[in-house]
Amino acid sequence: MDQIKVDSDRLKDFCAKVFQQYQVGPENAEISADVLVTADMRGIPSHGTARLGRYINGLREGLILPSAEIHTLKETPVSLLIDAEGTLGAPVSRNTMKRIIEKAHQSGMAFGCVKNSNHFGIAGYYAMMALPEDMIGVAMTNTAALGVPTNGSKVMFGTNPLAFAAPANREESFVLDMSTTVVTRGKVEVYDREGKKLSPGWAVDSRGLPASNPASLLDDMFHRRGGGLVPLGGDSEANGGHKGYGLAVMIDILTGLISGSAWGSHIFDKGTSSARVSHCFGAMKIDLFMDAAQFRENMDAMLEELRSTNRAEGADRVYYAGLKEAENYEESVNQGVVLTEKTARDLKALGESINLTFPVKI
Amino acid sequence: MDQIKVDSDRLKDFCAKVFQQYQVGPENAEISADVLVTADMRGIPSHGTARLGRYINGLREGLILPSAEIHTLKETPVSLLIDAEGTLGAPVSRNTMKRIIEKAHQSGMAFGCVKNSNHFGIAGYYAMMALPEDMIGVAMTNTAALGVPTNGSKVMFGTNPLAFAAPANREESFVLDMSTTVVTRGKVEVYDREGKKLSPGWAVDSRGLPASNPASLLDDMFHRRGGGLVPLGGDSEANGGHKGYGLAVMIDILTGLISGSAWGSHIFDKGTSSARVSHCFGAMKIDLFMDAAQFRENMDAMLEELRSTNRAEGADRVYYAGLKEAENYEESVNQGVVLTEKTARDLKALGESINLTFPVKI
Repeated sequence: MDQIKVDSDRLKDFCAKVFQQYQVGPENAEISADVLVTADMRGIPSHGTARLGRYINGLREGLILPSAEIHTLKETPVSLLIDAEGTLGAPVSRNTMKRIIEKAHQSGMAFGCVKNSNHFGIAGYYAMMALPEDMIGVAMTNTAALGVPTNGSKVMFGTNPLAFAAPANREESFVLDMSTTVVTRGKVEVYDREGKKLSPGWAVDSRGLPASNPASLLDDMFHRRGGGLVPLGGDSEANGGHKGYGLAVMIDILTGLISGSAWGSHIFDKGTSSARVSHCFGAMKIDLFMDAAQFRENMDAMLEELRSTNRAEGADRVYYAGLKEAENYEESVNQGVVLTEKTARDLKALGESINLTFPVKI
Repeated sequence: MDQIKVDSDRLKDFCAKVFQQYQVGPENAEISADVLVTADMRGIPSHGTARLGRYINGLREGLILPSAEIHTLKETPVSLLIDAEGTLGAPVSRNTMKRIIEKAHQSGMAFGCVKNSNHFGIAGYYAMMALPEDMIGVAMTNTAALGVPTNGSKVMFGTNPLAFAAPANREESFVLDMSTTVVTRGKVEVYDREGKKLSPGWAVDSRGLPASNPASLLDDMFHRRGGGLVPLGGDSEANGGHKGYGLAVMIDILTGLISGSAWGSHIFDKGTSSARVSHCFGAMKIDLFMDAAQFRENMDAMLEELRSTNRAEGADRVYYAGLKEAENYEESVNQGVVLTEKTARDLKALGESINLTFPVKI
């Protein structure tokens, strides 16, 4: 058996109980569980419950501080600067996006940065909070340094994801949620486990040359000898690698640098947990420009055209950002959340260590 | 002789006089000339004075309306919606960004959209207007449909550039100015003229399969039989093509769709001039989050680290976005603007048709 299906509510409840066992308050535990399970439901298992173990390690080792008091450092009608003081990423992020949306209702738009935070899960979760409010939402975070600049050989920025959400009506919402490197470290790890060579244009070795051996790349990266993932567009300017590099730095500026927190090469993961990172959230009322109902209709027209356009020979479907994820979510609601057997067994073990029963027999 | 050098002020003056000959008022002519020559000075000749002829064609053919009255359709303390009524792109764009900056001084941040506009030159020009104001600036535009969605075979969105500018102090400002396709149509045209094959991962043919023949691709695109440029990340999901596709659509939403103007496949160039397009501009005060002088110092530290990082074997330098362009600009100020002989001859001929002498003998 390769896949396990779990009812989403029971999985959330299980994860929340695990968080609570490690001094996370009930509300924050529930939010953290919701963000992880939502990632699995949207078909993004790299950011799903498979990460619970790393979060718990962070809590155990005192890298994530469940009871830290969050501070508002600066506030205007259009902005917020929050010091998360090392607390869990998801609750402070959801709370900040909520405040940003309230400000946008009052002022038309607002942006907020969160410094000294931890891994916040999928960026799309927060951007999507704007959708029922007739707003456009954005969310970004910096991450541990894993990306190598064009012409470079050392990691100098993170996989720095950007999420952007805009609401439709009949169609699924447009939800772009993308890292700014070609692939993530997780993909390199999978290739390592499967004994496969890396595809060209994914990573460079410690000399800055195309890397094909995942094991030695991971070892070089872990010991910070050089080498890393290349930005969206690949390992040279020929196919636009400098563009992905620029996007990653842009996101570093809007998260770590402008919040007075760590950026670039100064952020790195421990072996067992993730690094302190910074986030940025934004919301903008659609009716600053156009009636929101009309906007949703126009979005329907655009998105319907995109998914109905002529396909390439041999291609199955044309998607738009968020469509595949929304279909996956729907399926998870109806048929349960799909976990790999490894993830399910890891979660089960995590539960057993605190006398908590995993909701499915495996 | 392959290159001609022209004094930047004399070149601007020449271009402004050409615009004026076609019923463009003196101030708008000066702005339009400044934007074109600035592109050449920054080393982006695809958007420089080589485009003057297309602008003049647009004015001649009545596609660009030099005396159209621009309307403010919606306005709040944080937003603007402008109908350019088909006027020249650069003046209405510069004026809108100026108003957005004024609003950001009052409100902290602001966004503005311009509909029914024409080609505005380099997006970076407008984003950079925020720099002396201690602000972060952004600018975007949609363009004629030239890009094919991942798994598709027809053009459904433009090369939709994004510009983002953040100020430094000793270092050059960080100025990202990137199209969201791997390459532009201009590059395909150059390869066609030079009889070269297209690199893999740049474009797909009318069946959605990798295109290598630039002539047949251009012909297919011109007759809208299918085929086009692929988004940043390439022609499949393997190297992240769906991310560039998502970015292009995001920009289409923030420009054409939200302003109630044309978007996606509905925008196409004529043979002789460019399409009606829409833009979006934004500005945000840095001191919403951090003292601007401190921000500039932090930017210096980040940018200095990036350009000093270990190089890949065989690589000359590591840049950051905007560095190469700033160096090119400096050189143009000191040694004149570099034009290809073809561009210089075309400009000279344009001048002769209205009894205007090109500033350099060729």
